[in-house]
Amino acid sequence: MSSAASANQRPRPGRPRLTPPLLAGPPREQVLEAAARLFTSKGYAATSTREIAEAVGIRQASLYYHFTGKGEIVTELLSRTIRPTMDSVARIESLTEDPETALYLVALSDVRTLASAPHNIGWLYLAPDVAQVEGFDEFTAARDALAATYARLASRIATVDALGSIGPARLGEKLVHTVEEVIGLRNAGHRINMDDAAWIASSCLRLCGVDNARVELAVRDAEEFLDEIDGGRP
Amino acid sequence: MSSAASANQRPRPGRPRLTPPLLAGPPREQVLEAAARLFTSKGYAATSTREIAEAVGIRQASLYYHFTGKGEIVTELLSRTIRPTMDSVARIESLTEDPETALYLVALSDVRTLASAPHNIGWLYLAPDVAQVEGFDEFTAARDALAATYARLASRIATVDALGSIGPARLGEKLVHTVEEVIGLRNAGHRINMDDAAWIASSCLRLCGVDNARVELAVRDAEEFLDEIDGGRP
Repeated sequence: MSSAASANQRPRPGRPRLTPPLLAGPPREQVLEAAARLFTSKGYAATSTREIAEAVGIRQASLYYHFTGKGEIVTELLSRTIRPTMDSVARIESLTEDPETALYLVALSDVRTLASAPHNIGWLYLAPDVAQVEGFDEFTAARDALAATYARLASRIATVDALGSIGPARLGEKLVHTVEEVIGLRNAGHRINMDDAAWIASSCLRLCGVDNARVELAVRDAEEFLDEIDGGRP
Repeated sequence: MSSAASANQRPRPGRPRLTPPLLAGPPREQVLEAAARLFTSKGYAATSTREIAEAVGIRQASLYYHFTGKGEIVTELLSRTIRPTMDSVARIESLTEDPETALYLVALSDVRTLASAPHNIGWLYLAPDVAQVEGFDEFTAARDALAATYARLASRIATVDALGSIGPARLGEKLVHTVEEVIGLRNAGHRINMDDAAWIASSCLRLCGVDNARVELAVRDAEEFLDEIDGGRP
């Protein structure tokens, strides 16, 4: 690393950190990490930007260098509960043409996204105070896009009986919700292992009316792609 | 009504209501109704007992005559998202010996409980600030009891494949969660109709690995009991 680059990363003289850094990684990530912890433990409304800055060990003014405020922090955190899954969809659809295997893999990717999100931030989107944040619409749009992806895949699978009177759009919503079980499990102190993940992902197929034998088959077909869909993700 | 009873219900002289009553029903119910509206619109932490009292049109001190504080109000609201369902279980099991019909009816009762809860209060149990309330353990225990009921019924139904590696207890949890889809739908402005309710209840059977034909059968069998399980509930 050149000394110029290294100097850039050091606090400027006269503007020392309030305390030594408590967390690792770039300051922007440290802010997100500390905010995630505070929002999910105290609640969004009850957390101030000052507390977040203090937890990171930077001045409040420095926090505003990275984010316009709490609202931008929470919307970035929420978008991270969806983006990795959406990023995996095209890759999954290039790997398999079987819609049941594809739906299973998308759901599995979604389970992993929620299972690895720091401090179970998926939790936050249901909080009334978070829903009022400017920029929350962006999260709603991203979640709708995820539901539309589920709906598109499910519409190629679902039996007439399983669709009943509700139609593919509502089924897509249902599949997003069924994967969000991860959030409740984590809240209850449960660690999501691969068996849980596989079971939750296959519940998406069951909700489409896929019978036991074909669920089994999709799960087995998916196995060869597991490493490819999201590399080293937990 | 005797004049003594009627006098009991009137404000005593010298202690008039701050404003005329804004809501109907006994004061305790008015407090619950106003609190449900404020908690779900502003959030729990951001709502004061003073605001609740003002919304009802009573003094803050009068509110404390009915409740020890916000915590007792929110735990009472949360318990009402579960109690009516639990109350219906014994009645349902006396009506039918078929576990699939029974599970469907319990789930349907649960859907109706959440769909008719004022201001979608089911929403609140996921809020970090609510989870810290003294008395929240009681709600957790009630929700666990509901999950145990689902687990007991599901264990008589679920195929080995559908259970996979997770076991009946986790399947019970999953079924509670799948019905909680109602909360998200209401948040998104969706009004739950009978078709939605039937579809969500039958998704519990699908998650147990019940095939389309048998789901159909349970739904039809259940129809004759619909009026009996919870009388005039919406």
